[in-house]
Amino acid sequence: MAVPDLTQQQLDDIYAFAVDLGRRAGQLLMESIEKRMDGEEQQTVEEKENAVDIVTQTDEDVEIFIKTAIQNKYPSHKFLGEESYAKGQSRDYLIDEHPTWCIDPLDGTVNFTHIFPMFCVSLGFIVNHRPLIGVIYAPFQDQLFSSCPNRGAWLNEKRRLPLLRNPVPPMPSNAPSKCIFSCEWGKDRRDIPDGNMQRKIESFVNMAADAGGRGGKGGMVHGMRSLGSATLDLAYTAMGSFDIWWEGGCWEWDVAAGIAILLEAGGLVTTANPPEDVDTAPIEDVRLGSRLYLAIRPAGPSATETGRESQERTVREVWRRVRHLEYTRPGA
Amino acid sequence: MAVPDLTQQQLDDIYAFAVDLGRRAGQLLMESIEKRMDGEEQQTVEEKENAVDIVTQTDEDVEIFIKTAIQNKYPSHKFLGEESYAKGQSRDYLIDEHPTWCIDPLDGTVNFTHIFPMFCVSLGFIVNHRPLIGVIYAPFQDQLFSSCPNRGAWLNEKRRLPLLRNPVPPMPSNAPSKCIFSCEWGKDRRDIPDGNMQRKIESFVNMAADAGGRGGKGGMVHGMRSLGSATLDLAYTAMGSFDIWWEGGCWEWDVAAGIAILLEAGGLVTTANPPEDVDTAPIEDVRLGSRLYLAIRPAGPSATETGRESQERTVREVWRRVRHLEYTRPGA
Repeated sequence: MAVPDLTQQQLDDIYAFAVDLGRRAGQLLMESIEKRMDGEEQQTVEEKENAVDIVTQTDEDVEIFIKTAIQNKYPSHKFLGEESYAKGQSRDYLIDEHPTWCIDPLDGTVNFTHIFPMFCVSLGFIVNHRPLIGVIYAPFQDQLFSSCPNRGAWLNEKRRLPLLRNPVPPMPSNAPSKCIFSCEWGKDRRDIPDGNMQRKIESFVNMAADAGGRGGKGGMVHGMRSLGSATLDLAYTAMGSFDIWWEGGCWEWDVAAGIAILLEAGGLVTTANPPEDVDTAPIEDVRLGSRLYLAIRPAGPSATETGRESQERTVREVWRRVRHLEYTRPGA
Repeated sequence: MAVPDLTQQQLDDIYAFAVDLGRRAGQLLMESIEKRMDGEEQQTVEEKENAVDIVTQTDEDVEIFIKTAIQNKYPSHKFLGEESYAKGQSRDYLIDEHPTWCIDPLDGTVNFTHIFPMFCVSLGFIVNHRPLIGVIYAPFQDQLFSSCPNRGAWLNEKRRLPLLRNPVPPMPSNAPSKCIFSCEWGKDRRDIPDGNMQRKIESFVNMAADAGGRGGKGGMVHGMRSLGSATLDLAYTAMGSFDIWWEGGCWEWDVAAGIAILLEAGGLVTTANPPEDVDTAPIEDVRLGSRLYLAIRPAGPSATETGRESQERTVREVWRRVRHLEYTRPGA
């Protein structure tokens, strides 16, 4: 059942609310950091799945703050937050076609506990499974990424994304060469033969190695970047700073806002896992909840290709070099 | 021949000059970015050793700006800059005991060309081979890291480094677990059996894998981070955000300012390459110019160890997990 479309005025109102809420939630994160820096507060960290999967009291407090604000303003909207989900029993994909907020109060929790600036609040607004509005706020460096349908994607509501847009550059003709490749080591560190960690590493090395290396799979990317925040990886891809982001294992609250922003900026998101025929398989929009993501930055036309063609060519070149990852998911 | 010590007043004056110069140079970097974002200027990129080793016109312009300012203010000081060095014939270590500025007008050049914010200007002031004063300025996020002997290390001249200092936390008792490990894939991507790239990757995987993995070498670090800027890696280690930074292949202008800041903040820098007996070998200060660096963040005492003891324990745990890298260097 599709729900009726929202009007532009309704979307604009939700967007303005989300931007304000993102800034206020980010301010709460900074207040917590400042108390720790001033020695007024110690941090309590709780482990979830393993020693690198953690939650802090701040995560939970900020999620309640966000949830309360949304429920007061939009009582008919559904709400899905990382911390409340994590406490539930189900690992199903719970989003349906109704207007739903999918939020992460604190993405980059490990960064936050170490006071490395790459942490953020992430607010995604989804209708009919499509992320429509996104707000990502990284308060330590005061970077707010946001988007609304037909209004564009923005950095700090001042600079339109992607940042280079006069004109928007095409993907490099020999991509993934000349591309910045963003990837994360993630939380699954089990050293199992042909397990996810080993497949990720094999994929990373293929992307990094010089063009003659790895039996012709060498991608010789311009740079390999790991920030420790899937949400900010996507934000920087929307900005045009990262050309390619490839990831398995993250959840819908990690990516909902980022996908909205990336798509509005002109980027592409499909599945991380290569299909059987990488040369001809259709390049489909990613299914939210699939836990497997490959994002390409916004791209403009060249003399010989449309922007979309250059993005699709890049997707196929990545698929040639990466392994299948196994992150199953009920209900997605 | 040792040169006479500078007075505190002389150091304070040089420090104030360096902070101002760093900010002005960073502003030039931002002006170049803004012109590109406004479509007023195209970027010219020239390759050096290979497709990922690049220099821009901005690198060269900003180096001349910095060099001129230093020569006007301190005509007796020596000067070593990345771009003038790269144009020379020698790959020797050229710094002697005299007061010398060792600067990088733009560290993170790949990030700069892609407008990923992790780029910076780096100004190191060295006497008797010891980095004394450091200024690192990342203008996109307006983060200035600086230090002067006996005056402390600072973020934006407001927050003393490390950021957590009430009290400064010791290194984790089971380090490298609970540590953020900062490492870079670098520019040498030759896929040679047992070459530097393969040795780096083996070391990365050892640090990342769960504690039972890799034949007992699994480090299960809290996070793996790659920013694409050795200079900012060191700055964030001084800040306490990164616990461990391990790197081979970078040059003295990449690290001179960062080492000054890290040491003044209470960090430790030694060699990346494990000695024969990792349990008992003395942990010596790194030789500037060696191209092999292992940095540990500032650490305070615990009930059972001094901060230095916990840093040295961490060094040995890293050495157990990393491979020798081969970056030879005449004259260092």
